[in-house]
Amino acid sequence: MVDNNIKFGKLLTEPTLQRLSEYLIILDEFVENNKKTISSSELAEIYSNNANQVRQDLFKLQNTGRVGHGYDVMKLSQSIRKTLGLNTESPIMIIGCGKMGSALAEHLPFSKYGMELVGIFDVDPKILGTDIAEVKVRDIKDIPSVMIAEKSELAALCVPASSAQVMADRLVKYGVRGILNFTRKRLQVPSRVYVRHSQFICSFMQFVFMSKNVDEI
Amino acid sequence: MVDNNIKFGKLLTEPTLQRLSEYLIILDEFVENNKKTISSSELAEIYSNNANQVRQDLFKLQNTGRVGHGYDVMKLSQSIRKTLGLNTESPIMIIGCGKMGSALAEHLPFSKYGMELVGIFDVDPKILGTDIAEVKVRDIKDIPSVMIAEKSELAALCVPASSAQVMADRLVKYGVRGILNFTRKRLQVPSRVYVRHSQFICSFMQFVFMSKNVDEI
Repeated sequence: MVDNNIKFGKLLTEPTLQRLSEYLIILDEFVENNKKTISSSELAEIYSNNANQVRQDLFKLQNTGRVGHGYDVMKLSQSIRKTLGLNTESPIMIIGCGKMGSALAEHLPFSKYGMELVGIFDVDPKILGTDIAEVKVRDIKDIPSVMIAEKSELAALCVPASSAQVMADRLVKYGVRGILNFTRKRLQVPSRVYVRHSQFICSFMQFVFMSKNVDEI
Repeated sequence: MVDNNIKFGKLLTEPTLQRLSEYLIILDEFVENNKKTISSSELAEIYSNNANQVRQDLFKLQNTGRVGHGYDVMKLSQSIRKTLGLNTESPIMIIGCGKMGSALAEHLPFSKYGMELVGIFDVDPKILGTDIAEVKVRDIKDIPSVMIAEKSELAALCVPASSAQVMADRLVKYGVRGILNFTRKRLQVPSRVYVRHSQFICSFMQFVFMSKNVDEI
């Protein structure tokens, strides 16, 4: 995300938003393992930050389920879901059904986190009509009708970098309101459309740098 | 990454590191399109931040190639590469060769950004011995010999979440120094090993939240 100092709506900064989403994954593992409570220092240890930071982050939430020196895991998980707006179903489309798009469609637990995969789109006639994650792969030109039928305004872009801008322009024309960009191309869109960039090659660059410099922290 | 306020080695914070890596992608597109110079406001417009931020970020670099009111694109690109340590080849391994692992192997321009993909590993006998991105898929047990032969200490983890911790333990035992974790599992490793988490489902959560709240900025 562009500006880490941005403050928005519910007074969550980008780094807080990121941490809360990652805490949620940890909490849900606790739920799966039937662990009922968690302390801020336990969560901090698993997350690799410190208990103060955890407490500051959780202080932004409501109804965290504080019990004694810890939190009720289920309640804390629900509280994060509510704050992040994951308690209502957000219909998501995936544009581009190569390895990346289909890996996301197949492996991500969308429904567990308040999202529903309502459409997968491609241009390759060989895969149109096939099913991925129980969703039929449809032609790009069907996007507008799916948007109306499913009330979807959010799209994850997984096309080749060379066609990313063209496809983004098309999505903007169709009325898409948010694009999660997994391509390498920096998209240019009108300011009314929210773009979040998730560029793998940049993750690798940051990873290499930090791996080399982490001793110096 | 865990702590956005961490300062390290070359006085780059996590957000600055992220922006620099993303500026580099933009600059390289300029290079491809034979554009010779770029101003901070031009870069800011493409990146969707502001020129002051860009100038502050670039101030952390050396030999940025300032010319008049802008920068020499090639020199600035090289300067970022040098600062991020992308001017020497870092040998990278990919562990897990499902759709995600093979998508990364096939589509990411590692060599362009100072990385070399030196090994891809899996356990599935059906794909062992096949080539992906001109690299042979090898058995997980061959990791130590590849690490020695290729002097590689960095691994991207793309296995199913259910086997992520077991595989991370094994990588730690083998002497891996950094793990880029693409699985949903929060890995526990000794403090000498650097883990960077890149959790797609969290990117989707943050994307949904921001798309809904962006009007309120």
